[in-house]
Amino acid sequence: MSSKRKVCIIGAGPCGMTALFHFDQISDPSTEVVCFEKSDTWLGLWNFTWMTGTDEFGELCHGGMYKHLWSNGPKEGLEYPDYTFDDHYGKAIPSFPPRRVLRDYMEGRLVKKSKSDLKRYIKWNTVVRYVTYNQKSDVFTVTAEDLKTGRTFENKFTHVIVATGIFNNPNKPTFDGIETFPGRTIHSHDFRDAAQFKGQRVLVVGASYSAEDVALQCLKFGAKSIVTSYRSKPMNFKWPSGIEERPLIKKIDGKMINFIDGSSAEVDSIILCTGYKYSFPCLEDNLRLVSTLSVYPAGLYKGSLWLNDGNRKLFYMGTQDQYFSFTMFDAQGLWICRYITGTLPNEPKNIEEMKKEEQKWVQRRKNVKDCHDDIDIQADFIKDLSDGTGYHPDAPNAVELFHKWEHDKMANIVTYRDQPFKSVFSGTMAAQHKPWFQDFDDSIDSFVN
Amino acid sequence: MSSKRKVCIIGAGPCGMTALFHFDQISDPSTEVVCFEKSDTWLGLWNFTWMTGTDEFGELCHGGMYKHLWSNGPKEGLEYPDYTFDDHYGKAIPSFPPRRVLRDYMEGRLVKKSKSDLKRYIKWNTVVRYVTYNQKSDVFTVTAEDLKTGRTFENKFTHVIVATGIFNNPNKPTFDGIETFPGRTIHSHDFRDAAQFKGQRVLVVGASYSAEDVALQCLKFGAKSIVTSYRSKPMNFKWPSGIEERPLIKKIDGKMINFIDGSSAEVDSIILCTGYKYSFPCLEDNLRLVSTLSVYPAGLYKGSLWLNDGNRKLFYMGTQDQYFSFTMFDAQGLWICRYITGTLPNEPKNIEEMKKEEQKWVQRRKNVKDCHDDIDIQADFIKDLSDGTGYHPDAPNAVELFHKWEHDKMANIVTYRDQPFKSVFSGTMAAQHKPWFQDFDDSIDSFVN
Repeated sequence: MSSKRKVCIIGAGPCGMTALFHFDQISDPSTEVVCFEKSDTWLGLWNFTWMTGTDEFGELCHGGMYKHLWSNGPKEGLEYPDYTFDDHYGKAIPSFPPRRVLRDYMEGRLVKKSKSDLKRYIKWNTVVRYVTYNQKSDVFTVTAEDLKTGRTFENKFTHVIVATGIFNNPNKPTFDGIETFPGRTIHSHDFRDAAQFKGQRVLVVGASYSAEDVALQCLKFGAKSIVTSYRSKPMNFKWPSGIEERPLIKKIDGKMINFIDGSSAEVDSIILCTGYKYSFPCLEDNLRLVSTLSVYPAGLYKGSLWLNDGNRKLFYMGTQDQYFSFTMFDAQGLWICRYITGTLPNEPKNIEEMKKEEQKWVQRRKNVKDCHDDIDIQADFIKDLSDGTGYHPDAPNAVELFHKWEHDKMANIVTYRDQPFKSVFSGTMAAQHKPWFQDFDDSIDSFVN
Repeated sequence: MSSKRKVCIIGAGPCGMTALFHFDQISDPSTEVVCFEKSDTWLGLWNFTWMTGTDEFGELCHGGMYKHLWSNGPKEGLEYPDYTFDDHYGKAIPSFPPRRVLRDYMEGRLVKKSKSDLKRYIKWNTVVRYVTYNQKSDVFTVTAEDLKTGRTFENKFTHVIVATGIFNNPNKPTFDGIETFPGRTIHSHDFRDAAQFKGQRVLVVGASYSAEDVALQCLKFGAKSIVTSYRSKPMNFKWPSGIEERPLIKKIDGKMINFIDGSSAEVDSIILCTGYKYSFPCLEDNLRLVSTLSVYPAGLYKGSLWLNDGNRKLFYMGTQDQYFSFTMFDAQGLWICRYITGTLPNEPKNIEEMKKEEQKWVQRRKNVKDCHDDIDIQADFIKDLSDGTGYHPDAPNAVELFHKWEHDKMANIVTYRDQPFKSVFSGTMAAQHKPWFQDFDDSIDSFVN
C-alpha cells in the first residue's frame, strides 16, 4: 500500500463521524482514511425515515428513529467540548431537545469545526459486506458493494474502525400466542409515530429506555391505555394515569394478554421494546464482538481496541450502554485516532497488560449495584480515554448531571424533561421551556426560540 | 472433492424443495446435495410470522405472508402431477385455497412422495453470506453462517442453485411528502393482517397482484374506504363499492393525497403495493441476475441456467413472473436436476447455441400484448422444460384455466375466487365453497370439509 496507514471506518453515524472528525483535525500525512456509509447521509439513526424493514436498496433499515422523539437525557451530558450548544445556537436553549435540534447541532460541528470537507472521505450508498484479516500480510480485506451500481469491490486496509452502532438488530423474544394475536405487533425498531396508536389499548413489552419512552409517547399522543410488562424488575416510576406495569407475559389469547401474576389485560397493539443484540455480520468470526450490552463490554481495551484476535488493529466505537453518548464517542474517536497515528506515548506495548487492564474494568462493571454505579463507570471511562489524549478534562464532570437526572426521573417521569441543566463546558444554564408533555411542536424554530 | 458433483441449493422454499425432491428421486450416487436454509422451516414465504423487518437472528424477514391470504390463482394451475390435490386431501376441494391448505399440500408431497427424509439434506438456520466462482479450479466457494452458533464457514461446490425467491426486496418508490404523512406507511411486504386497517381510509399504491389483493382484503376486513393509485395503467376491474382507482400521486400533504389528475383523497394509512426487485446480494457480481421481472428474464437458458459468466454451473429457480408457480418450479427443478446429473442427452453443448435459444424467448417476451400472451409463454416454457425430462405432458394444459381465470377476474374481482376449475391431471372438478368475500375462516378443516 502506498501510504503508511490506511484506515477504514464503517459507518458515518455519530461514532464514525467523530473518528473522521479527529483524523481530519490531526491530518497526519501518512494516514489515509475512508468511510463507507450504507445510506446517502451522515449521522445515522438521527435521521428519520418512514421506511421499516428494508431501505430503497433492499438493505436493512438501520435506524429505529421515530417522529416526535425528544432526547431522554440532558444535552449537557452529550455536549462536544470544542463546540458547545451555545456555540451552535448562539443562546441558551432548554436541556432536552427534540431530534432535529440534536442532529443540527452535530452537523454544525462537522461542518464548522472540521479542517476540510469531511464528505470527501465518505463513500455513500456503500455497504460493507465482509471484513477479513490476514495475519501474514497484516492487512484487512474489506469487501463492499456500491449500492447504486451494484458493483462489489475489495479494498485493503491496515486498520478498521467498526462504527455501525448497536441499535440495528432488534431482540425479538417470543410469547405463547403471539402469532395469533389479532392486532398489530411490532418491535420498537419499527415504531415510527406514536400518533398511530391514538385511541388504542397498547401493550409495551420491556422495562428499559425504549419501553419508558414509547409508553410515554403513546400516552402523549392519545393512546387510550398502556400496560407495560417487565421480565426482571419493574421500572417503578410514578406513572401518570393511563400507564401501569405488569410482570412477564404468560400467554396471549386473542387480544387478551395473561401475565404471570394471574392478571390480564385486553389490548389492540403490542410494541416490543425488548432492546437490541450486538450484530456485526460483516466481520469474520474472530473479529466479531460477541457480548451482552453493558457500560464496559468485554474484549475491548479502553472500550475500543479489539483484543481477542491479537492483531490490535481493529476498533469498535459506541458499543457501550450509553449515558454520555456523543461526548463519549468523541473522547473515544480521539483516542482511537491518536492510537492509530501512534501519538499516545504511554500505551502498553504488551497485549497481556491490555487484557489485564480490560479485565479490571469488566470486573468493576460486573459489581455494579445500580444505574448510579454505571454512570460513575462511564465518567471514569471517559477520564481514562482522555488522560493520554488531552481531551477536555471537564468532560467527566457531567457525571453529576446524570445522577440528578436519574433522581428527576424517579421523582416524576412526565416532567423530568422540563428540568434545566448547566453545561460543564460553557457554564451556561439551560433555558426553560413549555412542559414536554404538552409540547407537540418539535421543530428547531419552536424549540430554540 | 470426494464425489463427482457437489450441489448447493440456497433456500428451502417451494423452489429449493422441488429441486431437492428431484435429486432425491434420482438418487445419483455421484451427486451430493446440500441445502442451506436461513430459517428453521421449509416452504419459505408460505409460513406466516408476525415479525417484520428482521427475524430472531437479525436477518432480513424473507417472507411477506399475511393472515387470511387465499390463493389468487386456481390450485389446478399449480398442481404437482405426481401428487394431486385429490391424492393429498382424498376428495375434491374448492379451487382457491387459503395459505394453510396450500402449505399442507406441498408438505404432503415432500413427506409422502420422497424416497428419503428430505430434511437430512438441509442445514437449517444457515444463511449464505457469499458465493464466488473460481474459473481455474471450476469450483464455487460458499461462505455461510450458522446463525445459532454465529460460526461462519466455507464449503466448496461444483454447482449452485439459487432458490432464494423474488419477493424479499421490496421496491420502495418515494413520493413528495411521504416522510411527513401523519399515518402509518408500510410496504405490502410488511402487511400482516388486513384487520389492522378496520375503519380506516387506506391508500393502496400499485396496480398489480399485491395491490389488487391488499385492496380487497382491506375491504373484506372492514376498511372504511380504499383508494388505489396506478403509475402506468389502471387495473380496471369492476370494483365493489368502497374501492376506487386513481392515477399517480403528485404530492402528499398531511393526510391529503393529491393525484396527477387533480383529484385528492384524505387517508389514514398508506400501503405501498409496489412490488419487488430482484435481490441476490450473496452472489458475486458476475453470478448475479440483474433484470426486470418478466415471464422470461434475460440471461437464463431454459429460464434456469446462468449464461453470463460462461461457466454453466449456476442455476436460478422461480425468477419468472408466475402463473403456474409450483408446477413451473417442479418442471424447472426436474430439468436442473437432470441437467446437473448429465441425463439430458439433447441439450446443446455450445454456449452460443444456448444464448441464441434464450434470446428467442426473450424476444418473444418483449413482444407480448397482454397477460394472455404471458400465460401462453409460460405454458410453452413448461413444455420446453418438459420435453427432455419426461415431465408430465399435461402440465402446460392448465394454460386454458389461466385464460379463463383472467376473464373471471375482469368479470367480477370479488367473486373470481368462487369459480371451480378442473384438474388437468386428475380430471377432478373442484368443489364449491362459501363465497370468498364472506368467508372469514381460513382453517384447513373449514376449507376442506
